[in-house]
Amino acid sequence: METKQVGEKLVSLCREGKNMQAIDELYSPEIVSVEAEVPQGMEKEMRGLDAVKQKNKWWFENAEIHSHSAEGPFVNGDRFAVLFDYDVTSHGKRTQMREVANYDVKDGKIVREEFLS
Amino acid sequence: METKQVGEKLVSLCREGKNMQAIDELYSPEIVSVEAEVPQGMEKEMRGLDAVKQKNKWWFENAEIHSHSAEGPFVNGDRFAVLFDYDVTSHGKRTQMREVANYDVKDGKIVREEFLS
Repeated sequence: METKQVGEKLVSLCREGKNMQAIDELYSPEIVSVEAEVPQGMEKEMRGLDAVKQKNKWWFENAEIHSHSAEGPFVNGDRFAVLFDYDVTSHGKRTQMREVANYDVKDGKIVREEFLS
Repeated sequence: METKQVGEKLVSLCREGKNMQAIDELYSPEIVSVEAEVPQGMEKEMRGLDAVKQKNKWWFENAEIHSHSAEGPFVNGDRFAVLFDYDVTSHGKRTQMREVANYDVKDGKIVREEFLS
């Protein structure tokens, strides 16, 4: 798949809340994931599918998601960006989050994701 | 200036339409600028302040800007992203453009800008 197609598939799956399926289908085993703000007890940079899945599992178990949206992809070469909005309650606190994520694609798979907030 | 401050200043100047002032104040002489879609007769990647200023001059001379907005910065480490919207008429055609720009900061100056659309 080309970068744009990978981006469209990711946006489509995230809109449906199928983030784990997106990781299974679109992420490289060598994925590097870089957070903007690090939740307590977590690393800023994670490597490998297991670590990224664990992070997502933690997120979905610890956040009540009231609404979410994904806009994009915005593409340039091997990189695409997605604009995410989340309305969540986590640890008793309700927050509206808006962030940009950059994804780098190699051989049709996402090898790096980076969140900016 | 830290990355977030550089981003806030850039967003503030772009909202006022002072893009040239933003380049003068915030860009490194070694700036690298990477476009998503290349206008006719232009390079996808440009280097140096003169080339980037020339590109911006061309843009402002060839586009009638009906409205514009800039949202951000979204920050992670030495990088920040900005979401731009433009309603422009260029070569007789009116277009609504929405793009994400990534900016890399080194020693308080923007050394790389990259547009995704």
